[in-house]
Amino acid sequence: MRGRLITFEGIDGSGKTTQIRLLKSWLDSEGYDVVILREPGGTPIGEQIRAILLSTINVSMTDVTELLLFEAARAQLVSEVIRPAMEAGRYVICDRFIDSTVAYQGYGRGIDPDLVDRLNQLAIGDIVPDLTVWLDAPDATLRTRISRREGDADRLDREQDGFRERTLNGFARQKARYPERIHRIDTGRAKEETHRAIVDLVRRTLP
Amino acid sequence: MRGRLITFEGIDGSGKTTQIRLLKSWLDSEGYDVVILREPGGTPIGEQIRAILLSTINVSMTDVTELLLFEAARAQLVSEVIRPAMEAGRYVICDRFIDSTVAYQGYGRGIDPDLVDRLNQLAIGDIVPDLTVWLDAPDATLRTRISRREGDADRLDREQDGFRERTLNGFARQKARYPERIHRIDTGRAKEETHRAIVDLVRRTLP
Repeated sequence: MRGRLITFEGIDGSGKTTQIRLLKSWLDSEGYDVVILREPGGTPIGEQIRAILLSTINVSMTDVTELLLFEAARAQLVSEVIRPAMEAGRYVICDRFIDSTVAYQGYGRGIDPDLVDRLNQLAIGDIVPDLTVWLDAPDATLRTRISRREGDADRLDREQDGFRERTLNGFARQKARYPERIHRIDTGRAKEETHRAIVDLVRRTLP
Repeated sequence: MRGRLITFEGIDGSGKTTQIRLLKSWLDSEGYDVVILREPGGTPIGEQIRAILLSTINVSMTDVTELLLFEAARAQLVSEVIRPAMEAGRYVICDRFIDSTVAYQGYGRGIDPDLVDRLNQLAIGDIVPDLTVWLDAPDATLRTRISRREGDADRLDREQDGFRERTLNGFARQKARYPERIHRIDTGRAKEETHRAIVDLVRRTLP
């Protein structure tokens, strides 16, 4: 039996890490074999690419270079890890995937979203997510969470205000474009409630 | 005055290194300010990408990952080095550029050449070569040169026979597609003769 690919999307502070952990526990308890992955990385080549993307010495990186590096790491991850895991019948949960690239590099940075979509297709081939959980909440909630985590949210938030809005809009546009695959889950409530909503969604969409 | 971008293309053994050196000497003697670049690399980020591409531990790299890494390094090179050099009125000579990617990753490895073309456009933007010198010779000549250089050409040549032919065909197809920009120069003769043909070409096409 072919496995499934579930991706979690949403901006920082949307609760992806917590909800992925809770979903994994639930899938484990239901007897599924679950793999959790995080982009970029997850393969030896992908980790080398990740190091280039994250290194603070690489401040001169162009937006297009960044996009191409993300897609290169993704192509490797799909080929080496995701496809074999799905062929072995496992459930793969990915913390960010194709829709983050459209939202951040496309809408956020201003690269043509259709072009980003085409690069996504090149990187993933026929490995399209079976279900994408878009975690979203009122902006004030997201800002509070980030502020608690980082301590200096004011400066960052102000600097990136336009970028944040464009990225949020990007997720909404992706949801409108792929309504069957992408489901918005409100995370502006207790994490247990959000978790129950995700379990309902998984039961409904991945029978 | 805007500078010029001259690219040299052709398979290994076609004499690119020698002819680039000779052309640079001639351009120097004519009073031009010349920069020579080699792909992938040429920027700090590009060199990090080059290390990933060339490392022998990365044998599991997929063809698509390889293509995307080449294009990422190129986008950075164009932005950080080629564009500023041309804006400063310099002559830039590039040892391999967009046409090698179409020939090797497209025709050689079997990725849709139109897609490679689109990625090239993404990486270079409006920085299209003013002149592309495609060095080509009868296959026997190229094989002899490679054989002298590497010592174990028989094994390599046999292994890559189909790949070589597809790549050679790829350069020919690019030339047919961009006849104004790409000029084939026969290198199956003395290097001084080839050099004179290239100087004639540069004089004729870059007045």
